[in-house]
Amino acid sequence: MTTLEILLAAKSAKRALATADTETKNRALCRMADALIEDSAAILSENAADLEQARGSITEVMLDRLRLTKPRIEGMAAGIRDVAKLPDPVGKVLRTVRRPNGLTIERVSVPMGVIAMIYESRPNVTSDAAALALKAGSCCVLRCGKEAHRSALAIVNAMQRGLEQAGLPKQAVQLVEDTSRASANELMTARGFVDLLIPRGGAGLIRACVDNATVPVLETGTGICHIYVDKDADLEKAINILENAKCSRPSVCNAAEVCLVHREIAKVFLPMVYDRLVRSRAECPVELRLDENCAAIIPGMPAGTQDFDTEFLDYILAIRSVDSADEAISHIAAHSTGHSEAIITENAKTAETFVQAVDSAAVYVNASTRFTDGGEFGLGCEMGISTQKLHARGPMGLEELTTYHYVIHGDGQTR
Amino acid sequence: MTTLEILLAAKSAKRALATADTETKNRALCRMADALIEDSAAILSENAADLEQARGSITEVMLDRLRLTKPRIEGMAAGIRDVAKLPDPVGKVLRTVRRPNGLTIERVSVPMGVIAMIYESRPNVTSDAAALALKAGSCCVLRCGKEAHRSALAIVNAMQRGLEQAGLPKQAVQLVEDTSRASANELMTARGFVDLLIPRGGAGLIRACVDNATVPVLETGTGICHIYVDKDADLEKAINILENAKCSRPSVCNAAEVCLVHREIAKVFLPMVYDRLVRSRAECPVELRLDENCAAIIPGMPAGTQDFDTEFLDYILAIRSVDSADEAISHIAAHSTGHSEAIITENAKTAETFVQAVDSAAVYVNASTRFTDGGEFGLGCEMGISTQKLHARGPMGLEELTTYHYVIHGDGQTR
Repeated sequence: MTTLEILLAAKSAKRALATADTETKNRALCRMADALIEDSAAILSENAADLEQARGSITEVMLDRLRLTKPRIEGMAAGIRDVAKLPDPVGKVLRTVRRPNGLTIERVSVPMGVIAMIYESRPNVTSDAAALALKAGSCCVLRCGKEAHRSALAIVNAMQRGLEQAGLPKQAVQLVEDTSRASANELMTARGFVDLLIPRGGAGLIRACVDNATVPVLETGTGICHIYVDKDADLEKAINILENAKCSRPSVCNAAEVCLVHREIAKVFLPMVYDRLVRSRAECPVELRLDENCAAIIPGMPAGTQDFDTEFLDYILAIRSVDSADEAISHIAAHSTGHSEAIITENAKTAETFVQAVDSAAVYVNASTRFTDGGEFGLGCEMGISTQKLHARGPMGLEELTTYHYVIHGDGQTR
Repeated sequence: MTTLEILLAAKSAKRALATADTETKNRALCRMADALIEDSAAILSENAADLEQARGSITEVMLDRLRLTKPRIEGMAAGIRDVAKLPDPVGKVLRTVRRPNGLTIERVSVPMGVIAMIYESRPNVTSDAAALALKAGSCCVLRCGKEAHRSALAIVNAMQRGLEQAGLPKQAVQLVEDTSRASANELMTARGFVDLLIPRGGAGLIRACVDNATVPVLETGTGICHIYVDKDADLEKAINILENAKCSRPSVCNAAEVCLVHREIAKVFLPMVYDRLVRSRAECPVELRLDENCAAIIPGMPAGTQDFDTEFLDYILAIRSVDSADEAISHIAAHSTGHSEAIITENAKTAETFVQAVDSAAVYVNASTRFTDGGEFGLGCEMGISTQKLHARGPMGLEELTTYHYVIHGDGQTR
């Protein structure tokens, strides 16, 4: 099928999805999970073919992201079943107003309609996205990177069988067949067909969507996250949080890339940083990129002009000293991507100022930025981390995948 | 100042606005209203110059929209004072979650930052937009059509004096000096400077923003609104509602453009339409554009292919007969702009089906589409009617001009 045919099919399935009751959607999710398990052998064999083809042309890290195993498929199925257990976000009356003229105005949560997602090589995104969109009452049109296409197709085939077993149209979950750049552009400009486009991937993909899209886009995931260690910080907390935010999983968007250190405690704190992030990690030391003041205190590379504007996604940390919380706030305003920032301080007033002035999706006081995550926020799931201000910020759960409309009941009122 | 300089100035004023308390913002609004009244003579004289220049090059309707009078300026000042009376939408804790690990996660409403608005020739939009943005804690950058530029500048000058009297930076409200197309394009692509762009104007302007913008856009205002008269309609209510929706103010976006009539009642209802909308309105009859079935019952022009996809904004109504509520729903899905639709029926079940299946911002049962309006919805004000699904739908009040972020308090938690 062409991408346009797929979009037409999604549009035609919209109403069935939007009006499906909770029980039907949950039954479909459980059937989809069953079907994934039933099709494990087929999925693994398609995945092996993807891996074979991709070997040599993508990095080892990417290959690992692409690789499926029986336990990983079981994890995907369990993820779908978890979504079935979450409350239905559709049809909630969010607000009721009764007007003097007798009109009753209700704001009711409704599905988006068709959610398109452009992603790269992680096959599990296929089932995660499909499950969340379905529970939110929307059809989804998925477009994965060519490396993962055979795996994704096998996963979608299984899920479509599950949908049909539950009496829902298989057009609710579709994979774009064309993996060339043209199909991504078609989704970005499919006004009237795509109600929401979510790109999940590197900065290049996000930027391409922002530049070219004429459909509504939810930008996700670029994170230049800052940890500001204030003069009133508990330095033990600070070093634990910094280590966690940098080293626990540096390849993810909520990992810290920059540490700002108040000059008054720099002489004590920076040696702790060097000790914990470099010396104690002989096998995998963090590369420190230091401004001039910091370089006078501990060893490290001099920070280049780009180091405070780079999402390293690696064992690299840029460090700069500041004279005040205000200077930290200004630095963040100038360099942050609006994802997550933390202040480490025991001074409640400084914390309050920081929290009010920092304009990022998540602002932490004395905790690691690594908590910016749907599961950690108690949403039970996540379709990505929004870094824009329109519609949703931070982890997007089921509620963020719906919209609302107004339903007004009258008895012949005119104006 | 260049547009870039204006954007830089707005960005530098962001924090002062975001952290201004309610009292300061309200005081500023009252000073702005005072200043408008004080400057009435200057504003009227600049407006006279705008009118003089525009005469001949724009229509009479546009000239009237552009024209200011003393009572109109008083109305603008009263509008600003009304905004001062509305509750502050910023800093509300929308939700609190306490996690098992001891983290407290709050979702808090925060300002957008910088709101840009591109509009045409109505000078009162200048003060409305400035007042709403200010109360919502955001700076605004206004770009009006060249016909209204001198008037808008006089209004902005007055408002800036009011801002400074209240101790807020005058950069909170700015007017773009360049009225060429280039400045509109600059605003559309000012990533990192414009947090939200709201175009208010005709379909051409909205389309240009959607096509070219790389900043987040809230589409407003195009309305191809439908009235569906069901077989179980109370025809008296139906004709009153239809007359109101079409004739009370045809130039606005919530006016009806299309009437869908159930075939079973067409023979009774259409003559009522002809009588009320044509015959009784000798001085200003509505031009009916009829499908074949309707044309067999009452006089009118045959509907052309574009008549069911046109926002007439005039005394023109397209009428089509349908065999069922389902057919009406399908017609609306294919032709609506997602603004407002109404069903007229006494059958609660049919109404419920319609309301669930119609995917527009406002869906009415037995009431006129003309109620889609911030004031009528009880919002106290309005920055336009959103016709997109992301972020806000329908009338946008103060709440819709804010966003939220997460504030997380911990005590050293790591993951």
